[in-house]
Amino acid sequence: MNVAVDAMGGDNAPEMVVQGAVKAASELGIDVTLVGDRDVVTKQLGSRFPGDHITVYHSEQVVRMDESPLKAVRKKKDCSIRVAFDLVKRGKVDAVVSAGNSGATLAAGILTLGRMEGVERPAIASIFPGEKGHVVLIDVGANVDCRPAHLFQFGVMAQAFASSCLGMENPKIGILSIGEEGSKGNEQVRLARELFDESRLNFVGNVEGRDIFTGGVEIIVCDGFVGNVALKLSEGMAQATTKLLKTELSGSVSGRAALLLGRRSFESYKRKLDYEEYGGAPLLGINGVGIICHGGSSDRAIKNAIRLAEQYARSQVLDRMAAQLNTFRDFLV
Amino acid sequence: MNVAVDAMGGDNAPEMVVQGAVKAASELGIDVTLVGDRDVVTKQLGSRFPGDHITVYHSEQVVRMDESPLKAVRKKKDCSIRVAFDLVKRGKVDAVVSAGNSGATLAAGILTLGRMEGVERPAIASIFPGEKGHVVLIDVGANVDCRPAHLFQFGVMAQAFASSCLGMENPKIGILSIGEEGSKGNEQVRLARELFDESRLNFVGNVEGRDIFTGGVEIIVCDGFVGNVALKLSEGMAQATTKLLKTELSGSVSGRAALLLGRRSFESYKRKLDYEEYGGAPLLGINGVGIICHGGSSDRAIKNAIRLAEQYARSQVLDRMAAQLNTFRDFLV
Repeated sequence: MNVAVDAMGGDNAPEMVVQGAVKAASELGIDVTLVGDRDVVTKQLGSRFPGDHITVYHSEQVVRMDESPLKAVRKKKDCSIRVAFDLVKRGKVDAVVSAGNSGATLAAGILTLGRMEGVERPAIASIFPGEKGHVVLIDVGANVDCRPAHLFQFGVMAQAFASSCLGMENPKIGILSIGEEGSKGNEQVRLARELFDESRLNFVGNVEGRDIFTGGVEIIVCDGFVGNVALKLSEGMAQATTKLLKTELSGSVSGRAALLLGRRSFESYKRKLDYEEYGGAPLLGINGVGIICHGGSSDRAIKNAIRLAEQYARSQVLDRMAAQLNTFRDFLV
Repeated sequence: MNVAVDAMGGDNAPEMVVQGAVKAASELGIDVTLVGDRDVVTKQLGSRFPGDHITVYHSEQVVRMDESPLKAVRKKKDCSIRVAFDLVKRGKVDAVVSAGNSGATLAAGILTLGRMEGVERPAIASIFPGEKGHVVLIDVGANVDCRPAHLFQFGVMAQAFASSCLGMENPKIGILSIGEEGSKGNEQVRLARELFDESRLNFVGNVEGRDIFTGGVEIIVCDGFVGNVALKLSEGMAQATTKLLKTELSGSVSGRAALLLGRRSFESYKRKLDYEEYGGAPLLGINGVGIICHGGSSDRAIKNAIRLAEQYARSQVLDRMAAQLNTFRDFLV
């Protein structure tokens, strides 16, 4: 297995990205191909070059964060994210990880590898920490307006991914709405619910915002607008409340003593709220493996995203997903 | 000032609601009219009847949580929530507080008091705790599908409410989207943004999910579907993470010592994450004052909602809101 990493993508690229790749190579033994300007990347690697596990693949261009994703990817044939997906297409690597312009990663993935049969809209699935374990929220930003059939396909893809790659057995699927009763929600949700009800999937019905963190479902489908708001809100809250707690405790002698005494508990608490555990969000519905990371990813997040990409590529999720999508081919006509 | 409270509405009604009303009357000296079955309510009041500040007003019917709100309110002319708004209309009380079926409260408010001039869709505004102070999110559930003009009106109403009633001076307004750039978001957001840009309101542009908790804006407008998901998610996370932290610390001797030593800091932390501080969400855009509480409200939440209702009624927000809406009358044509 070899994971191509877009070395030029991200707010802290290439430094953080290269550091993350080095960690994945040296700590996890994963083969990584850094795609980007050879001179820049090699300089970043410096003396830390760990040898066999890391290759540098040269590309001339970069898609900036403020560029229109589709236009940039179409125009810049030699941009790092497109070259990375080209390597997948040519069988040189098995997956792509990028912390660059997420719209460009989406566009390059679809343009280069194509959509899977039975998928109208590829989607981004985020793996959330939750009170009762992990929860997959799909879509978190690829599609701002979705039809009911798209939401249904998100559920099918996420189920295959979660069972093959996250070890969830027959994961429960819910649809994000604003009330538990079937009559509640907007038109899109009501119609998608009917599709799920008629399928043989393990569907539990409507779930609410609180269930993203505290609910008893493993997969939650929603459109990319709502999903992106939910993802950013929960990440922001997890960070801000942890910081707030630390500030409160640091303000007094007894508080500082509490911080010291409760150190292990606080660490365990932080681990359970860790949004970097998987480092990135899989892009589901393209003919290949792509992981989208935050622009501001730390080296640890990049390392974990590379691990997820390697697991995803190794676990044959794509075959399982294709088979599942095929089952529902006539269902959605 | 006299606040009518729907004594029959809520998961824990009438017990919790009556207890909250008693607290508002005895601790805050606010006159409260409990609307509901006289026998049931009087029995709940029991020996705690605090005398002059509490009145009971009889109504025969109740709207259940599982009923279709509009149908139920139309059919049940003598239901507690409708009778409560009737008391406002007849000038007997100044505001309504209800923890019952929120759709029914919305429907009864609009049906009985009517919409304000210049408001197409009344909306529910939730007052969130945030890292930098309170944030008003509007709409959190009244309207699942909104047109750009509706979002603009939400902003106008919330601005009048926040400046008159929450002491925010010229509060900044943002529109919830999935990227800070103006080109991002769905069609509805892009068009609403244009309206705000052209107005003389203190508008800062797009904000993201994380800004609900950590941002530098005081008012965030969004449609009721997204807003409801965000409200439920953040409430759920605040509760669940606080519980998780306590569980982690309680699991060891040193952790329990930390809990004890850091008691004051933990209390201060909890106060800053307190979603019950205002107890309920104002229903903006009707010709009167209505506060919608959670179905599962505690007596403390009910008490705080009664205080908010009294402040809202006393602060002449409605006049200010009407004047502001009038300013933009020709703007939206």
